[in-house]
Amino acid sequence: MSYKDGYTVAVLGATGAVGRAMLETLERRDFPVRELRALASPKSAGQQLTYKGETVTVEAVSEASFKGVDIALFSAGATTSLEWAPKAVEQGAVVIDNSSAYRMTDGVPLVVPEVNPHAAKAHKGIIANPNCSTIQLMVALSPLRSIGLEHVTVSTYQAVSGMGQKAIDALKREVENGDTEGTLFPVASGTNHYPMAFNVLPQCDVFVEDGYTKEEMKLVNESRKILELKELRVSPTAVRVPVVYGHSESVSVRLNRPVTAAEVRSILAEAPGVVVVDDPLRGLYPHPLMAVGTGDTYVGRIRRDLFDDRTIWMFVVADNLLKGAAWNAVQIAELLITR
Amino acid sequence: MSYKDGYTVAVLGATGAVGRAMLETLERRDFPVRELRALASPKSAGQQLTYKGETVTVEAVSEASFKGVDIALFSAGATTSLEWAPKAVEQGAVVIDNSSAYRMTDGVPLVVPEVNPHAAKAHKGIIANPNCSTIQLMVALSPLRSIGLEHVTVSTYQAVSGMGQKAIDALKREVENGDTEGTLFPVASGTNHYPMAFNVLPQCDVFVEDGYTKEEMKLVNESRKILELKELRVSPTAVRVPVVYGHSESVSVRLNRPVTAAEVRSILAEAPGVVVVDDPLRGLYPHPLMAVGTGDTYVGRIRRDLFDDRTIWMFVVADNLLKGAAWNAVQIAELLITR
Repeated sequence: MSYKDGYTVAVLGATGAVGRAMLETLERRDFPVRELRALASPKSAGQQLTYKGETVTVEAVSEASFKGVDIALFSAGATTSLEWAPKAVEQGAVVIDNSSAYRMTDGVPLVVPEVNPHAAKAHKGIIANPNCSTIQLMVALSPLRSIGLEHVTVSTYQAVSGMGQKAIDALKREVENGDTEGTLFPVASGTNHYPMAFNVLPQCDVFVEDGYTKEEMKLVNESRKILELKELRVSPTAVRVPVVYGHSESVSVRLNRPVTAAEVRSILAEAPGVVVVDDPLRGLYPHPLMAVGTGDTYVGRIRRDLFDDRTIWMFVVADNLLKGAAWNAVQIAELLITR
Repeated sequence: MSYKDGYTVAVLGATGAVGRAMLETLERRDFPVRELRALASPKSAGQQLTYKGETVTVEAVSEASFKGVDIALFSAGATTSLEWAPKAVEQGAVVIDNSSAYRMTDGVPLVVPEVNPHAAKAHKGIIANPNCSTIQLMVALSPLRSIGLEHVTVSTYQAVSGMGQKAIDALKREVENGDTEGTLFPVASGTNHYPMAFNVLPQCDVFVEDGYTKEEMKLVNESRKILELKELRVSPTAVRVPVVYGHSESVSVRLNRPVTAAEVRSILAEAPGVVVVDDPLRGLYPHPLMAVGTGDTYVGRIRRDLFDDRTIWMFVVADNLLKGAAWNAVQIAELLITR
C-alpha cells in the first residue's frame, strides 16, 4: 500500500470501547491518516468523537462509507463484520477485523505483529485480529518456540471491558450501588445471571462443546493458527474477574528440553512487545493496573515447575483493549503501509 | 473427651474475621458449649461479641484463661500460637490451631475432617487446621485418590478476607473512595504496595524460595501431609483478586488411568463436603458468592483435558473463612467430642 499524503482509514464500531481505543491508538502511534471516517450503526450516528484534538462525527455505515478507504478497522461484532467486510473489500479497502468472524477462515491471516508478521502479506482483503486473551499469550509464548513448545496450560483472569462498554458500566453500577440484578454477566444470552462485583465467574462467552467455552476454544485454535503449530496442546480455563481493564493469565508451558527460569527470563527480555517484570523479592511482577494504557505484554513470576525441569510457569498481563484489540489492530495496519 | 453437660470452649483471636466466624460456626452447628471464653490480645479486651443471642465480653488472654478449657480454637497468628498453645495444652486443653505455626510439625495432625479424620486421634494436645486454599483443594481431590493422583496444578483466585478484617476494610475503602494509597496489599511487609480494587495480584503471603510464595508452598506441603502422599506433585500459583469472601481455584489433576468427566462427577457427587454444581449449558457452576456463608466445597466445570484422557480440569470454590478456617476448625472439634 503506497503512501501518498497518508491513508484513508475507516473505523467501524467507533463508539464502542475498542473503537474508541482504535482512534486513540491511531493518534498515539501517529499513524499517517489523511482522512478518518468514524462509522457505526445508525443508532450511534451523529455522536461526536475526538481525534487529534478535532471533532469527528460518527456516520452510519453504508456502502458509500468505504469508497476510497485504504484501511478499515472493524470492531462491531461478528455479524456486522460478515455483512460489511466483503463490501469494504469490494470497494478496495483492506479490512482488519477485530471480531471472531474470519479468524479461523482459510486464507484469512490471523496476525500478532510480533509473532507472525509475514502472514499479513498473504491477505486477500481481510486480516483478522485475534482474541484478546490469545494475543498476549502469543506474545509471551512465541519467543519460546526456539526451545520447542509441547504443552501450554492457561487459567485466565479477564477484565469485564472484554465484554464492551456496557459491561464496564454494569460493573461500576454493581460496585457503587450494590445493583447486582443485572442480566449481563456472565453472558447476556445465558439462562442464569450472577453478580460480577466481588465475584469470580468461570465463564467467558458461551459454552460450546464438552464443557468448554467459546473463549477457551479460541485460545486453543487461534494459538495453533498464529504459531503455525497445528498439533500444539493448549489446556484453557477462561475466568472473568471484577477488573475493568487488563487481562491476566497464569500460564504453564512444557518445553522440549529442560530449561531454567533464568534462560526463559533472558529470552523473554529480548522479545518484541514483552516487558519482563520479575523481581518477586522486591515485590515486582505484572498486574493489570501496571499494563493499563500500554501496548506491551508484561511477563513475570517466571519460575520452573517444582517437579518438572521442562515446565515453566509465568504470569502474563496486558491491556485487553489495547494489545488485546485496538493496539494490535493498528500494528497490523502498520505492516501494510509505508511512511 | 467425654460429654458432661457440654464443653468449655475458648476462642483465641475472637475479634478477628476468623474468630468471629468461629463463634458463629459453634452456634450454627449447635456445638455443645457449656462455657464460652472469647479471648484476644489486651488491646481487644472488653469488646463485646454475641453468641446465641447473649453478649460475650472479650478477655485478654492469660494463663488463667485456659483453666478448665476442653477445646481452644486459636486464630490469632503463628506468633501468638507458638506462645499460647503450649500453655493451653499444659492446662489440659486441646488446641485446634488455625495458624501455620504447627502445621508441618511432626506429631501434630493436620486435619480436614472429610479427608483424614483418623489423623486427629493421634494428637498430643495440638491439632492444626490447614491453610484455607489447601482445605478446599483437599475436599475436592481426596475422593479421587481411589483412582490415583499423579499431578495436580492449581491457580487460585483468593479473597482478601484471607488477610483478615483489615483487608476487608481496606478493599472497601479502595472501592468506595478510590483510596488506593494503602500499604496492605499484597503483604504489609512488602517493599511495594499495589491497589487491590479492580486489580489482580499474583502474590499471596511472602516469597520464600525459587520464586514461589509461602502460600504456594503450603499448597504443596500441606496437601502431601493431609493426603499422606509424600511424593504428590502439586504445581501452585496463588493469586489475590478483589473478592471479599470465597476462594476459587482452577485445578487440573492427572490421574493414574484414563477417566471421563462423568466418572469424576459421579465420584465427587457422593463425596462428603462436596457439592457438585456442574451444568454449564444451563449456566450452573461454582462462584464465590454461591459459597459464602456455607461450609461446603463447590466443584464444577468438571471436564477432561482436551488432549490427555487422564487429566481432569475443575473449578473449586469455598468460603475461605468458613470451610477454609472456622468451619473446618469446629468440624475438627466435633471429632473430639461426644454429644
